[in-house]
Amino acid sequence: MSVTAAKGFSAAGVIAGIKASGKPDLALVVNEGPEAHAAAVFTSNRFQAAPVVWTKQALATSRLAAVVLNSGGANACTGSAGLADAKQMASWVAAEVGCAPADVAVCSTGLIGVRLPMPAVLNGIQLAAQDLSSSGGDSAAEAIMTTDTVAKQASHTSPSGWTVGGMAKGAGMLAPALATMLVVLTTDAAVSAATLDEALRIATGFTFDRTDSDGCMSTNDTVILMSSGAAGAADPAEFTEALTGVCASLAKQLLADAEGASHDIEVRVDGAASEADALEVARAIARSNLFKCAVFGNDPNWGRVLASAGSVQAPFDPEHVDVAFNGVPVFVDGQLGADRSQVDLTGRQVLVEVNLHAGGESAAIWTNDLTYGYVKENAEYSS
Amino acid sequence: MSVTAAKGFSAAGVIAGIKASGKPDLALVVNEGPEAHAAAVFTSNRFQAAPVVWTKQALATSRLAAVVLNSGGANACTGSAGLADAKQMASWVAAEVGCAPADVAVCSTGLIGVRLPMPAVLNGIQLAAQDLSSSGGDSAAEAIMTTDTVAKQASHTSPSGWTVGGMAKGAGMLAPALATMLVVLTTDAAVSAATLDEALRIATGFTFDRTDSDGCMSTNDTVILMSSGAAGAADPAEFTEALTGVCASLAKQLLADAEGASHDIEVRVDGAASEADALEVARAIARSNLFKCAVFGNDPNWGRVLASAGSVQAPFDPEHVDVAFNGVPVFVDGQLGADRSQVDLTGRQVLVEVNLHAGGESAAIWTNDLTYGYVKENAEYSS
Repeated sequence: MSVTAAKGFSAAGVIAGIKASGKPDLALVVNEGPEAHAAAVFTSNRFQAAPVVWTKQALATSRLAAVVLNSGGANACTGSAGLADAKQMASWVAAEVGCAPADVAVCSTGLIGVRLPMPAVLNGIQLAAQDLSSSGGDSAAEAIMTTDTVAKQASHTSPSGWTVGGMAKGAGMLAPALATMLVVLTTDAAVSAATLDEALRIATGFTFDRTDSDGCMSTNDTVILMSSGAAGAADPAEFTEALTGVCASLAKQLLADAEGASHDIEVRVDGAASEADALEVARAIARSNLFKCAVFGNDPNWGRVLASAGSVQAPFDPEHVDVAFNGVPVFVDGQLGADRSQVDLTGRQVLVEVNLHAGGESAAIWTNDLTYGYVKENAEYSS
Repeated sequence: MSVTAAKGFSAAGVIAGIKASGKPDLALVVNEGPEAHAAAVFTSNRFQAAPVVWTKQALATSRLAAVVLNSGGANACTGSAGLADAKQMASWVAAEVGCAPADVAVCSTGLIGVRLPMPAVLNGIQLAAQDLSSSGGDSAAEAIMTTDTVAKQASHTSPSGWTVGGMAKGAGMLAPALATMLVVLTTDAAVSAATLDEALRIATGFTFDRTDSDGCMSTNDTVILMSSGAAGAADPAEFTEALTGVCASLAKQLLADAEGASHDIEVRVDGAASEADALEVARAIARSNLFKCAVFGNDPNWGRVLASAGSVQAPFDPEHVDVAFNGVPVFVDGQLGADRSQVDLTGRQVLVEVNLHAGGESAAIWTNDLTYGYVKENAEYSS
């Protein structure tokens, strides 16, 4: 269930002293081979944190021997000094595990605009290197938490014996094409770097890219996939499916732990002329604060669903749209449907279905409600 | 200070019995001439409420004799029956004031998806027609309130003696090119219908279109401008400036009363390559829930400002951006600036300035913070 579920990986999570709280704040994941293929996707934000800039360069070779991750500081908007810090972290890890600095990815999460306490970081890297083990995945997953209330991990083992495992952190600023999150995925399947890259893009496109907690895009989002090849060959299609399943599990765990959320919402749009249209409509609904507040209040407010759908360009005829909440058709063919009192939103899971009757394409966005807890967390916690 | 500040207008606000609360819920504004020119702008939402559909048709002649407005029900997403109700309202008003139904605009606000109680509406129209007076502006402004806590009115009298007055309602779903709001503007300046239309588009473009409380677009937004010509000719440029001033006052009153808001925020972007770029960046920041929660918490979180700016396409170099909060330059030329502790956000007014250093264009968006009050109001109140 962790980054050490796949053979050929060791990991550790330690208390480096970066966080004032004294909680675990540095993790190390090492690929012991025999192979060292890697792929990654990053935030599309134009303000990219120093570790993102560094790790993009490192990935140019499609090889990684290790990933170091810290919570307690994002090392974002820290200028050239911050970039030097990220590079220093890679060098320290390289010295400990015996690889080139260019084979070390760096991920950071926490407050933007503050330099990392480098002596604490060095201490953490040395501690983690001593603590590396093939059962260290759980402690690594704990060490990357910020406002997360639980560690997020998932794994899948194929009938032929190879495994995909992963860990994720993230609880807010989750969107739109990557949540604010750090994800490390590992596999012992022997697949080429090109296959890793292709599979990762497909898997994230169907999962993290469709996860939209609050419409806010981070400066540090990184998803890294490494393969050790320790368990033999895998069929690329089967591997992509397994990887997508692990990413879907992690994405849903991220949303379930989203800041203050009391409902997990799936906004599903059917009958669109294109998949892009379906996503545009679903995302507009998922980003409506009014809709999200209504769900918090257990109110199946289909008027707010329509008002959001009506703000986009995707082609459809507003006179012939359907809306259902948890299976109850409250708006049918542009007319009032079942009474809203028939809808029960007291449970955690909410399914909103919109049919545009404009084609045969579908897509869904996963989001959550907007609550007092979200406001509290983001008014009181600097990130 | 009201829609009856200009000569040639009478108005009334009454308790029709539409609202269960027994508060005033129907207003009538009548243009007694000598002229009856009119212009209007409407929501760009593709789900348009029945009164919007009706009033767009009525404006085809650029003439209006009266506007009837109700709170307590939006008559939106009510199908052909709702459109018949809107038309019926115009006919009833026409019979009372002695004009053609096509010269009567209809505006509604309140819950989406519920038919209006037409006997109560008829009762209200008859009461209002009896109550019309040249001092009825205040009562009309009160009768259009929904979650508004205060009535919004403004007026301006020119040195040459003509007046522009107006009233507005709206407290949430305020965006993006028109807030959820109903606005009636009146003038006794003798200006052509073409000048009215041009002046209204300029005035709303600089005011209501740049007001973005929560990024949600309504189905009922309507801004109507009527001229009686009772005070003689006006210079078009001077008239446009006066109208813009009245609209700006109303827009700021709307934001100041936005649901639950505790800060009024101006997000100003300078140094953009185009005004559209400046607006794109300013709007992205103004819509960031994380930024808005931070302001609620009196936190000058420039990292969230940058993260939002970095999510848009407008050309600029992230390495050379400045951010200031209330005049304190917290991020300068892509590097850490003054310490955030120097910023005081405890007051109501917050000015966020971003300089892109990419050109000479500027624009501002007016917004507010995201608070417990917003969540409470929108979780508990169906609209």
